[in-house]
Amino acid sequence: MQKLTIIKVGGKIVEEPDSLAKLINDFAKIPGLKLLVHGGGRSATKIAEQLGIQQKMVDGRRITDIETLRVVTMVYGGLVNKNIVTSLQAIGINAIGLTGADMNIIRSHKRPATEIDYGYVGDVDKVDADAIAQLLHRGLVPVIAPLSHDGMGSLLNTNADTIASEVAQALAPIFDTTLTFCFEKAGVLADENDDNSVIKKIDRATFNQLRDRNIIAGGMIPKLDNAFKALKSGVKEVVITKADSIAISGCGTTICD
Amino acid sequence: MQKLTIIKVGGKIVEEPDSLAKLINDFAKIPGLKLLVHGGGRSATKIAEQLGIQQKMVDGRRITDIETLRVVTMVYGGLVNKNIVTSLQAIGINAIGLTGADMNIIRSHKRPATEIDYGYVGDVDKVDADAIAQLLHRGLVPVIAPLSHDGMGSLLNTNADTIASEVAQALAPIFDTTLTFCFEKAGVLADENDDNSVIKKIDRATFNQLRDRNIIAGGMIPKLDNAFKALKSGVKEVVITKADSIAISGCGTTICD
Repeated sequence: MQKLTIIKVGGKIVEEPDSLAKLINDFAKIPGLKLLVHGGGRSATKIAEQLGIQQKMVDGRRITDIETLRVVTMVYGGLVNKNIVTSLQAIGINAIGLTGADMNIIRSHKRPATEIDYGYVGDVDKVDADAIAQLLHRGLVPVIAPLSHDGMGSLLNTNADTIASEVAQALAPIFDTTLTFCFEKAGVLADENDDNSVIKKIDRATFNQLRDRNIIAGGMIPKLDNAFKALKSGVKEVVITKADSIAISGCGTTICD
Repeated sequence: MQKLTIIKVGGKIVEEPDSLAKLINDFAKIPGLKLLVHGGGRSATKIAEQLGIQQKMVDGRRITDIETLRVVTMVYGGLVNKNIVTSLQAIGINAIGLTGADMNIIRSHKRPATEIDYGYVGDVDKVDADAIAQLLHRGLVPVIAPLSHDGMGSLLNTNADTIASEVAQALAPIFDTTLTFCFEKAGVLADENDDNSVIKKIDRATFNQLRDRNIIAGGMIPKLDNAFKALKSGVKEVVITKADSIAISGCGTTICD
């Protein structure tokens, strides 16, 4: 099986010219087939503010009303995605920018409103692995924005971690897939104030212990839940690391089953 | 040779939900391989205004400073392009949205400043016909935004008529290519106030006569110059018609050599 590396990178890194340039160079060094999933939340918030569209967040998740959907479509699908693609092309990487609607690669449904109505937010139903695999086999590097579609004419704002994880799971039967989440810290830390305290390996049992001892807490819990789900679905390896270490193997935290 | 229809549609039609819905339905009726090139100028102007970025136009052409380049990247590459793609997917047309940077399909150079500095505006150097043809052969419908790239990391704002014309010329050796420009009027009119006065056919000699008699004037002259250039490069047929007639053959004005 051919090796495939999927990198998920947050908004902060791809939105600033300097950190984007560094990411592009590091990404270029990754051997074999590769795919990038990006965020863009900070730019979306900034542009929404400038347009006078108030942003509501619940537990760090954006409530996506119809006006905000227009903003994330512009920012994720246009500004951020095309800047990455153009930067990759400049160093000879044949990138292609995609949302879930393009080639119908990621279908989702609008999350039903419960106590919270997230608005135009999508929960993923289906990733077309064959369509993405065909691009990879042709030597293309897909760059995927955190937008899916419902097949009925609406784009839906979709968490970038979820997109990366769902794409990795769908591609796992076709490629020997590594999924790397870029993070502000060097990995999962034993002491959150010490970047040298990276936990090299975490399996399910260690995770439960660390969570019980409150060493793994907050936003890291869903990230790791996501990672274990991906491993269960055949993804070979999930890595959590700093963006500047994506091309260096053995860095960060490796999650294993 | 397989038949290919390339439709270029202006911003006005794709920016309003009602006219976009009508266009999508008409576009769906066109048999055989097809490709859509779109504008988006009105939305770009509106969003730029809302963001406080003043727009300068010279002879109807936008001066694209760096801030405006960000706006057109968002609006053309994101908002307009992805709305079209998502709408096409909703009726079962497997669309893929592209800028010139995606798959490196349209390379250009920044137009040199003369008396006028157009800023980040691209003049097309090369269209990768094979890359586009491969998508078409796979049953995909490319939807191309009016953005090209310079291969050095910058997107460039590029006239949508020019993109449509250059793409048609590049694909002409591979497909039996018809290029249709959608227009607000029913075609080239003998009397600009009478939509029933469509001139059915215009060849080079007729064009010269009509131009000398001032029946063809203003923005129609570069449109027709573009059309004749495309015909010279092997495009089979160039049609100028109203957007609501794209699926009806024999409507509008056919330009022939």
